[in-house]
Amino acid sequence: MSHNTFGHLFRMTTFGESHGAAIGCVVDGCPPGIKLAASDIQGFLDKRRPGQSRFTTQRQEPDAVKILSGVFEDDRTGGQVTTGTPIMLMIENVDQRSKDYSEIRDKFRPGHADFTYQVKYGLRDYRGGGRSSARETAVRVAAGAVARKVVPAITIRGCLVQMGPHKIDRKNWDWAEVDNNPFFCPDRKTAAFYEEYLDGIRKAGSSCGAVVEVTASGVPAGWGAPVYGKLDQDLAAAMMSINAVKGVEIGAGFAAAGFTGEENADEIRMRHGKPEFLSNNAGGVLGGISSGQDVVVRLAIKPTSSILNPRQTITAQGTETDIVTKGRHDPCVGIRAVPVAEAMMALVLADHFLRHRGQMG
Amino acid sequence: MSHNTFGHLFRMTTFGESHGAAIGCVVDGCPPGIKLAASDIQGFLDKRRPGQSRFTTQRQEPDAVKILSGVFEDDRTGGQVTTGTPIMLMIENVDQRSKDYSEIRDKFRPGHADFTYQVKYGLRDYRGGGRSSARETAVRVAAGAVARKVVPAITIRGCLVQMGPHKIDRKNWDWAEVDNNPFFCPDRKTAAFYEEYLDGIRKAGSSCGAVVEVTASGVPAGWGAPVYGKLDQDLAAAMMSINAVKGVEIGAGFAAAGFTGEENADEIRMRHGKPEFLSNNAGGVLGGISSGQDVVVRLAIKPTSSILNPRQTITAQGTETDIVTKGRHDPCVGIRAVPVAEAMMALVLADHFLRHRGQMG
Amino acid sequence: MSHNTFGHLFRMTTFGESHGAAIGCVVDGCPPGIKLAASDIQGFLDKRRPGQSRFTTQRQEPDAVKILSGVFEDDRTGGQVTTGTPIMLMIENVDQRSKDYSEIRDKFRPGHADFTYQVKYGLRDYRGGGRSSARETAVRVAAGAVARKVVPAITIRGCLVQMGPHKIDRKNWDWAEVDNNPFFCPDRKTAAFYEEYLDGIRKAGSSCGAVVEVTASGVPAGWGAPVYGKLDQDLAAAMMSINAVKGVEIGAGFAAAGFTGEENADEIRMRHGKPEFLSNNAGGVLGGISSGQDVVVRLAIKPTSSILNPRQTITAQGTETDIVTKGRHDPCVGIRAVPVAEAMMALVLADHFLRHRGQMG
Amino acid sequence: MSHNTFGHLFRMTTFGESHGAAIGCVVDGCPPGIKLAASDIQGFLDKRRPGQSRFTTQRQEPDAVKILSGVFEDDRTGGQVTTGTPIMLMIENVDQRSKDYSEIRDKFRPGHADFTYQVKYGLRDYRGGGRSSARETAVRVAAGAVARKVVPAITIRGCLVQMGPHKIDRKNWDWAEVDNNPFFCPDRKTAAFYEEYLDGIRKAGSSCGAVVEVTASGVPAGWGAPVYGKLDQDLAAAMMSINAVKGVEIGAGFAAAGFTGEENADEIRMRHGKPEFLSNNAGGVLGGISSGQDVVVRLAIKPTSSILNPRQTITAQGTETDIVTKGRHDPCVGIRAVPVAEAMMALVLADHFLRHRGQMG
Repeated sequence: MSHNTFGHLFRMTTFGESHGAAIGCVVDGCPPGIKLAASDIQGFLDKRRPGQSRFTTQRQEPDAVKILSGVFEDDRTGGQVTTGTPIMLMIENVDQRSKDYSEIRDKFRPGHADFTYQVKYGLRDYRGGGRSSARETAVRVAAGAVARKVVPAITIRGCLVQMGPHKIDRKNWDWAEVDNNPFFCPDRKTAAFYEEYLDGIRKAGSSCGAVVEVTASGVPAGWGAPVYGKLDQDLAAAMMSINAVKGVEIGAGFAAAGFTGEENADEIRMRHGKPEFLSNNAGGVLGGISSGQDVVVRLAIKPTSSILNPRQTITAQGTETDIVTKGRHDPCVGIRAVPVAEAMMALVLADHFLRHRGQMG
Repeated sequence: MSHNTFGHLFRMTTFGESHGAAIGCVVDGCPPGIKLAASDIQGFLDKRRPGQSRFTTQRQEPDAVKILSGVFEDDRTGGQVTTGTPIMLMIENVDQRSKDYSEIRDKFRPGHADFTYQVKYGLRDYRGGGRSSARETAVRVAAGAVARKVVPAITIRGCLVQMGPHKIDRKNWDWAEVDNNPFFCPDRKTAAFYEEYLDGIRKAGSSCGAVVEVTASGVPAGWGAPVYGKLDQDLAAAMMSINAVKGVEIGAGFAAAGFTGEENADEIRMRHGKPEFLSNNAGGVLGGISSGQDVVVRLAIKPTSSILNPRQTITAQGTETDIVTKGRHDPCVGIRAVPVAEAMMALVLADHFLRHRGQMG
Repeated sequence: MSHNTFGHLFRMTTFGESHGAAIGCVVDGCPPGIKLAASDIQGFLDKRRPGQSRFTTQRQEPDAVKILSGVFEDDRTGGQVTTGTPIMLMIENVDQRSKDYSEIRDKFRPGHADFTYQVKYGLRDYRGGGRSSARETAVRVAAGAVARKVVPAITIRGCLVQMGPHKIDRKNWDWAEVDNNPFFCPDRKTAAFYEEYLDGIRKAGSSCGAVVEVTASGVPAGWGAPVYGKLDQDLAAAMMSINAVKGVEIGAGFAAAGFTGEENADEIRMRHGKPEFLSNNAGGVLGGISSGQDVVVRLAIKPTSSILNPRQTITAQGTETDIVTKGRHDPCVGIRAVPVAEAMMALVLADHFLRHRGQMG
Repeated sequence: MSHNTFGHLFRMTTFGESHGAAIGCVVDGCPPGIKLAASDIQGFLDKRRPGQSRFTTQRQEPDAVKILSGVFEDDRTGGQVTTGTPIMLMIENVDQRSKDYSEIRDKFRPGHADFTYQVKYGLRDYRGGGRSSARETAVRVAAGAVARKVVPAITIRGCLVQMGPHKIDRKNWDWAEVDNNPFFCPDRKTAAFYEEYLDGIRKAGSSCGAVVEVTASGVPAGWGAPVYGKLDQDLAAAMMSINAVKGVEIGAGFAAAGFTGEENADEIRMRHGKPEFLSNNAGGVLGGISSGQDVVVRLAIKPTSSILNPRQTITAQGTETDIVTKGRHDPCVGIRAVPVAEAMMALVLADHFLRHRGQMG
């Protein structure tokens, strides 16, 4: 049981609240002998870091990661490597702005976890959302960076494929464009449109949802397991565990419901002596086991619940009221979900790599 | 780690292949003192049982369940009750038709797990799909019937809301209609259309996908946990673990990606002294914890991979060939997925009930 | 969490009561391609089977095991092999003698689990001890036989080294003697004495305890893990989970408490180019990780609680009374614990083999 | 799977090496609303802290614990309380003396984990033993202090009952004496002897083993579970996971092997309307479930492996050599194992309390 642990053989256990002293995690099960420095992790954290454009929260957090255990600088091995023992990653909280929290202390923000945490635990750390804050996802990104090193032959890439109701044009897809705009969008043209669209949303004090797509290339056929150890089952759990995610699909996903068997079947041919699928409706997973094709997952992210326009709600004491959520919030949390979803993909794959190797050698 | 186990405190471990001697499971963690007879389980199995209409496989399986352990007929307690020890549920396979399996032994059916099982394990029980057969889902239904008894105040209902590309008309929704048609469809009018549509699919030797929706009413606020013990995370895993499922969404799901924050926020009022949400885009889960509203989940099921129209594939030896899958197959596996998805909902809720009680008392 | 599951990557989930329809288990995580027939298991069950000498219970149970899933007879592979899916092992209960259970239904046998089961669950299957019966250990032996096949290079041997207060003379140790007497005793001379001693115990309607020792030879150095994945930690849990076990020790065990550091240190030399330890006080485990030496564990088994001499107890209603436990009981359960302890050793090692391979390749 | 995690519902995940930046743990599953300050934990750490007498290592570590998450100072609740989210406890390493580690870097200390870590991982943090150092046990003590707060009605007390070959005289047992001598010894007379004895050991550059006994009073009947969720199974694992422990016994333990059934049976009478056992050979556990009596466990600790007298060993390169382990070592690690064993008892009981409540309400 693992309310704050993700994974089995490769696993992370996270801790920390939005406005506590620090957030972090213990990564357990990592094979030894892997070169690992904080700088290997920092790059991924920087992608997710807030305050980098006007489209994300203006909270200023350097998100500087420290490795407190599990690595060793041995002059004989030449450089810092993992030792096979737990890797502790810590990120100190810096910009915990001193402010008046009485508004969210006493009122439940609709769409937010305020209500359910209060009902469950009888109290909550309301400062910045406490444990329910998306700040926890920084830790996932850090652990995901370690996971990538466990499966170095796999390329994991994520991007934004829909903002609000507006989908990208897949004909324009270019992975190289992802880092050229503040939305991680692979379609340059649509990215330009998103800039205008999101400025409108932002200025209106509103927010919007998004769809993120993550692809893993180079996953060998055979990872995963039947029935309750399915690779796609674990991907679904991984993605749904990210804040604000309301839907997950693999390959053709919900569109597959509208297909006939003929349309859906990914036919197989031989190419250069190897099996080649003629399509990838399966999203790289058949019967819960990887097929060797790209593993493709999409996740739907709801709009940020914290908006400037007043919504009807109640107080903790049961009085009807309105709430306006000021503060520093992302108008579209889907953007910064891209590196987080990539990290979750990496964590699932590293775990399944070790699980596969355990049973199969 | 649990490749064939689902759940934590309330958990099932399943076994069995399509054409082996039996399928079944061990249900562990069930509280003692609950009345439980095979007849309590049989009704749910009968809903899923094949061969009940021309729209499902004609394999004749009585799916008669036996309880081999974990219950006790004590004359002082008056009737058979659970004892708190593992409950073994067994269903013998009856209609394992003796036939020639050479076609699927040597060729990989596109869209099926044949290829990935062979690559992973180096061999597979190809008879009827072996362990990857949807026959395993009968066991889930049996265990789900026990789970329902653990949370008797909760009403779990599933139905088919889309067949192929055709969605039901939600204005016609009537739960009472679900048992009046062979599709578990709550919209009588659309059900009539489905009959015609699926006959066409069936006669063409084809198949189609579907979308299933499951609702749980009466779930108290407070179940679930933050971060990696989220109720919706476990629901996503539960549903994605069902054969042929390619997508899962909670509440508004993928539609939420197109919403603004104002549209998405489920506003709260007081009604009869209790909090009442004015909408349920959240699908009954906020921050991974139940809100007291109906828990609503939808799953996309791809079309049956076994179709009569020839598809291009390869043999296990790597020779290109075509395959036509004869045999007794459901033209739309989404139909019989309804009782299975209900069962998975029950299993997740029973588990979270015990988990919540463990931490919170 | 796993009240009825043992192991992680290689794991068994057991079910069944002494007087139910059957006992059995699901073995999960077994690598594929291992030859496995019921006959491979039956030999180990026969060693544990009751009624083979006057020194064990006269209950007549053939303990015939059936494999209901997880193996496949493929004409191409030539013989029945594991498929990597769950292996269901079932043993039907045959000799559930119809008798009057009112004595143990209403009275708590001192030293037995009657009292604690009743207090915990509010009811219990009192027939033959129900789930608390040592009959469950037959299932461990069956699963252990599968585990041995996962680590075929390891030789696991158990024996009885103490009966009542009488230890064997280690100078007489001869593994070949173990099967020559009904006590699994490696010391022929002491075995002869045990025969006389236990006849006295048996005729007096009494019972006695024992100490069992199990050795695993051929375990490579490096299995296990630091801190909470220690090999000896898991061995301690495995052995303590066997009915009636009250103590476990590794290597020198409790005697090590009386040693000085000099006496305890297993010094190391090189021999034929390999490290060789000059003693084995460690019992083959250093820092939780195997050293390559024999893994040696001992377990203390208390005397059978069911005896013919009256003991003071109370009824379920709280009335003081006496109890005499008639029925068919082993005068020294430690004897039949030998194959059970061997099985638990095999299960721990198979699990750690896969766990080690998962992390280390 | 949990190489660095202990427990199920109440669980800790530890990290850190002897000479790294910090050691610590994440405590997960703690119920909310429990008052918890660092000062509640510090007292237990101080008991275990090194350098307090000449009989423990002279390493100077303040072992000051910080709580980095999982608690919240809410002016409405009045004081810092747990929130139900993960509690991060961190202890910075202070006295990592800069020294020459070449001796233990290149040579394997007999009886230590040097050899097995090197073989398993191919490298190791040799400074002070790295992850295999007993320094990790400070974290257990910290987490154990939290666990005690989860089961406040239970009194957990540990003591030293044997040093080297010398047992205490149980007739002199007085819990109040435990804090009056540097050995946690409940027998004042024997404690005086131990002082002399251990001085001799220390001056001789040698070390000795010990036996520790821990008792938990106030554990209600009914905790634990049959078969593989046994309370004593988990206690055995807990204690065997402590560095240098080679044996664990419950109640009469190994002595029970020498008993007859009559001697071993803890007879039951009624007293003040409640069941009362006339003896406690069971050590408070019957069939894996607590009986309401004191839970009593004993553990055997081997002598410190690091001694000043030369021992034969080999280098990592396979050359025969001798080793003398200088540095700051406890001559009898069994002494400081007392608070550690108490902590493990607390952790097991807190976990079983929540597990029991989960299934039983």
